[in-house]
Amino acid sequence: MKQEKIPQEHVISRSPFPASKKIWVKGQLHDIEVAMREVSLSDTKIHNGFGLTELNAPVTIYDTSGPYTDVDADIDVKKGLPRLREKWITDRNDVEQLDHITSDYGQLRLADNTLNTLRFAYVSKPYKAIQGANVSQMHYAKKGIITAEMEYIAIRENQRIDLLNADMKSAEIDPMLHQHKGNSFGANTPKGYITPEFVRSEVAAGRAVIPCNINHPELEPMIIGRNFLVKINANIGNSAVTSSIEEEVEKAVWACRWGADTIMDLSTGKNIHETREWIIRNSPVPIGTVPIYQALEKVNGKAENLTWELFRDTLIEQAEQGVDYFTIHAGVLLRYIPLTAKRVTGIVSRGGSIMAKWCLAHHQENFLYTHFEEICEIMKAYDVSFSLGDGLRPGSIADANDAAQFAELETLGELTKIAWKHDVQTIIEGPGHVPMHLIKENMEKQLEHCAEAPFYTLGPLTTDIAPGYDHITSAIGAAMIGWYGTAMLCYVTPKEHLGLPNKKDVKDGVITYKIAAHAADLAKGHPGAQYRDNALSKARFEFRWEDQFNLSLDPDTAKEFHDETLPADGAKIAHFCSMCGPNFCSMKITQDVREYAAKQGLEEESALAKGMEEKSREFAEKGSEIYL
Amino acid sequence: MKQEKIPQEHVISRSPFPASKKIWVKGQLHDIEVAMREVSLSDTKIHNGFGLTELNAPVTIYDTSGPYTDVDADIDVKKGLPRLREKWITDRNDVEQLDHITSDYGQLRLADNTLNTLRFAYVSKPYKAIQGANVSQMHYAKKGIITAEMEYIAIRENQRIDLLNADMKSAEIDPMLHQHKGNSFGANTPKGYITPEFVRSEVAAGRAVIPCNINHPELEPMIIGRNFLVKINANIGNSAVTSSIEEEVEKAVWACRWGADTIMDLSTGKNIHETREWIIRNSPVPIGTVPIYQALEKVNGKAENLTWELFRDTLIEQAEQGVDYFTIHAGVLLRYIPLTAKRVTGIVSRGGSIMAKWCLAHHQENFLYTHFEEICEIMKAYDVSFSLGDGLRPGSIADANDAAQFAELETLGELTKIAWKHDVQTIIEGPGHVPMHLIKENMEKQLEHCAEAPFYTLGPLTTDIAPGYDHITSAIGAAMIGWYGTAMLCYVTPKEHLGLPNKKDVKDGVITYKIAAHAADLAKGHPGAQYRDNALSKARFEFRWEDQFNLSLDPDTAKEFHDETLPADGAKIAHFCSMCGPNFCSMKITQDVREYAAKQGLEEESALAKGMEEKSREFAEKGSEIYL
Repeated sequence: MKQEKIPQEHVISRSPFPASKKIWVKGQLHDIEVAMREVSLSDTKIHNGFGLTELNAPVTIYDTSGPYTDVDADIDVKKGLPRLREKWITDRNDVEQLDHITSDYGQLRLADNTLNTLRFAYVSKPYKAIQGANVSQMHYAKKGIITAEMEYIAIRENQRIDLLNADMKSAEIDPMLHQHKGNSFGANTPKGYITPEFVRSEVAAGRAVIPCNINHPELEPMIIGRNFLVKINANIGNSAVTSSIEEEVEKAVWACRWGADTIMDLSTGKNIHETREWIIRNSPVPIGTVPIYQALEKVNGKAENLTWELFRDTLIEQAEQGVDYFTIHAGVLLRYIPLTAKRVTGIVSRGGSIMAKWCLAHHQENFLYTHFEEICEIMKAYDVSFSLGDGLRPGSIADANDAAQFAELETLGELTKIAWKHDVQTIIEGPGHVPMHLIKENMEKQLEHCAEAPFYTLGPLTTDIAPGYDHITSAIGAAMIGWYGTAMLCYVTPKEHLGLPNKKDVKDGVITYKIAAHAADLAKGHPGAQYRDNALSKARFEFRWEDQFNLSLDPDTAKEFHDETLPADGAKIAHFCSMCGPNFCSMKITQDVREYAAKQGLEEESALAKGMEEKSREFAEKGSEIYL
Repeated sequence: MKQEKIPQEHVISRSPFPASKKIWVKGQLHDIEVAMREVSLSDTKIHNGFGLTELNAPVTIYDTSGPYTDVDADIDVKKGLPRLREKWITDRNDVEQLDHITSDYGQLRLADNTLNTLRFAYVSKPYKAIQGANVSQMHYAKKGIITAEMEYIAIRENQRIDLLNADMKSAEIDPMLHQHKGNSFGANTPKGYITPEFVRSEVAAGRAVIPCNINHPELEPMIIGRNFLVKINANIGNSAVTSSIEEEVEKAVWACRWGADTIMDLSTGKNIHETREWIIRNSPVPIGTVPIYQALEKVNGKAENLTWELFRDTLIEQAEQGVDYFTIHAGVLLRYIPLTAKRVTGIVSRGGSIMAKWCLAHHQENFLYTHFEEICEIMKAYDVSFSLGDGLRPGSIADANDAAQFAELETLGELTKIAWKHDVQTIIEGPGHVPMHLIKENMEKQLEHCAEAPFYTLGPLTTDIAPGYDHITSAIGAAMIGWYGTAMLCYVTPKEHLGLPNKKDVKDGVITYKIAAHAADLAKGHPGAQYRDNALSKARFEFRWEDQFNLSLDPDTAKEFHDETLPADGAKIAHFCSMCGPNFCSMKITQDVREYAAKQGLEEESALAKGMEEKSREFAEKGSEIYL
């Protein structure tokens, strides 16, 4: 196998981010340590002739990269990540460890000796809720229990540990000073701080989910809900013969490194079961799947041969491995299928078209719909969350917001209420391709029909004419729908519609979606969002180039682009940039303006205090006394 | 010189787009021929067993690439493009050809024999309005005259010549059928067709401008106004010693090729005068400049040494060369400067900071403001349009929509009315860095203060944390503000804030902004916008891969990305794509669903006609009769 030949350190990305270190913040309710990334900044040199400097407090950043960026962590992908949550789970005394895998397919694969070299060596026996128990976070939340996962998330979401820890007194410009007021954050959002109790209440209300299968104890808990930071998902997957299993693990590590909050494993190759085990065991973020894809593989791609029994076994197989959420296309009802016949692009969802084909072939209602309560029973025994799939989403601008799409959305709302009856956590998938002026309607209808369950959208793409750039066509829609209230954005890579994403495409997709999610956080006024923009802009204005790179979403690219034009190390502390040259830099001139004003004794403070504009107009009218 | 060594055909991009040819549509009022690009499509193979095919009408596309993509055009950058408009201009009998250049600086450069090898060889003597005449398009429009430029634009904007010329009867799906209703197009917008009279009325009202200096007869007329297609501008410019003059020309050709509607020449090198001549003579799109940049060069970068007389000579120098619009930072008033002192990023506009420095150094009001009417006199003698610069635009999220920015905007509104008094065409520049929830306020205030003069914004960037990706952070804001009513979007490249864009960056910036502009056109419901999306989506759904590539904004990249995974020619006619594999493609399954339904005698038409959803529900309830 390939991973035997390539040393692991060459395959798995492990280098820490520049000027960054891992920090851990302890919990107060539970014995937990929340991992974050801290970026240290250089001092500002104040140009007043006294050689003074201003300290810039380090910036704490929400970190999805897991232990991989911790230089001290001992990583061995063959053994998997530390089982962080295992004790939290077992301490709740509502799970049992099974003697063996119970799914038929899982047993079949285990018994196949030809897979020995492929197989993850340290598979634990699966956990399951004890008879009659419900181990979903929603179940705990409704009972008023604040779990360790919830406290972890509260600490993690606040992000601005810098304000608590660092000495900000020396900062001349308080990064908070210029924070805009948010205008669309929900009425339930706390103003300055996210508490564990707030996390619990949102999960109990169904407005947020914590995807965390009890068989994926390696994950660092995160939350998906519109009163929290907007999250992004990255799809990975092998297909045909493109990659080795270890390369698949690196795809997940790579996506998390750049900011993926969850990973969907859409593998369709023949060793899908084994690949998934490797990915889950090594993933610090929740893993989602579309179980119908694997079920279809089991019937050699013949949708009409799918059965409920086969699908059920697939759910158990994947739940026992630790998949955190399942996309289930239970809203593709027989009666909706004719609504798609006159579309420009018919049914473009793979899951949707599989179920449509099955329904037509059997003249029966979708078995995912008719067996929905049985699915709920499985979900709550492992705390797998529903991601109710939009199998009838529009595949083109022409088909956006049509009857088929919204009919299915109503059904997803109906199913959400059934899931909640079982305390199963639920998010709702959304489109797709939608022009800008029709995006808001999607969010409004989703909130209405699905009782505020979190929305999870693919883009949407705002035009169809740019294959090769659909990360961008969709980031526009994603940022907007994130602002309107979508809780998680499924990324789109530049290869969408054209081919399989390579490593660069995955990174481009993730970074682009971090941009969309962060733009949405700013527009929503998330209390932890704007401080990073302010810190970076202050660094930019003060020509602290390295700080500007280090605070950016992608320090490597920022530095590389700068170095293309001005590679010398000296240029990184120079008071000009390559766009303007030494005599002609607006930022330098602005600094000159400030210094000039200061030298001339301009009392900015008093001028600004007494109604800035009025006062300065007076000065101008009086003539030159002030500016002399 | 470098361009002597490199054969021209290797420097200037000339290849036509795949499956595309130039077509020319004749005018009815004037003797004009409007150039467009026509993309021919392959037939659709209908899978009904009879081997029938469906013809797909060719798609006409708004074309900014000029003669360069015309294989029959004889291009010689040393001679410049054909002087398309010269006869239109002279036929109006209100211009005279001067004996010689009148600007002092222009004469100085001409007299310098060391520049002979650098100089464009075929400089025409400049045109100027005869004494007392006003040659602006606004002046003609107000007098009720429909110029050749206006008719050219009306034909060009409609874009959908395919509907007039092609036999669409064979098309099973009318591309218009699925067109969404626009929801924000101005009350003045014609519903289906843009007429020459509509163009005239918009220009007369000041809601649109046609940048077209009488000394730039080579340009193909275009319009900037919110009731027309959203336009994009690309900045180019030499700086330091990066490039030869011919490489600068190629930058402009390259940007137009990918869709730039105008070019701003921001060169700051020592041969700025000569470079500009080359660019204008070879540019099929309007050229804008920021004259204060060159004025500053003339005083060796010392802002305080700028004088009105020097600036005035620069305006005339550039007007005689044929610059179509000038960015003039006349709204940076002395009394506004203290409003920027407490910003996170002060004054980031180069022009703004230059003027601020001058104002403070002299304790005087901005000379661009105090001499504004004299500037108008120059503008109207050549038909140069104002682009009133936003010298106090915010340079960070923290500074968005602050007192300094909006104070300046009010002054720009005041200046707009003065310009219009002189019938000088005027657009207004806008920010910058603005979080999503504050974007709309920019558009609303601009419309209010500037009496609906076209808005021309730089992005805006919706977050500061992604240097290296600011084409994307800003495309989000650009698409939104374009939808809200901005008429032209100034592109941002991936190198923004970091360095000088190379060829790839320019292309990335242009394509990204075409996406933003087109997304805005769709959301506004521009009558000529959605048909291209529909044609591309239909091609995608029918696995007409080559058509999908050819209809895309960047056929080269779309094809290249596809070929990375499935390079064989056979794959381009295969009925599956690389994301799913042969057994597992949603589009294939949907086709199967349609075929299956057809085979079973499902009468889609009648089902769809009688209230689709209701009818199909009935079918489902009745059982399997229909789907048998």
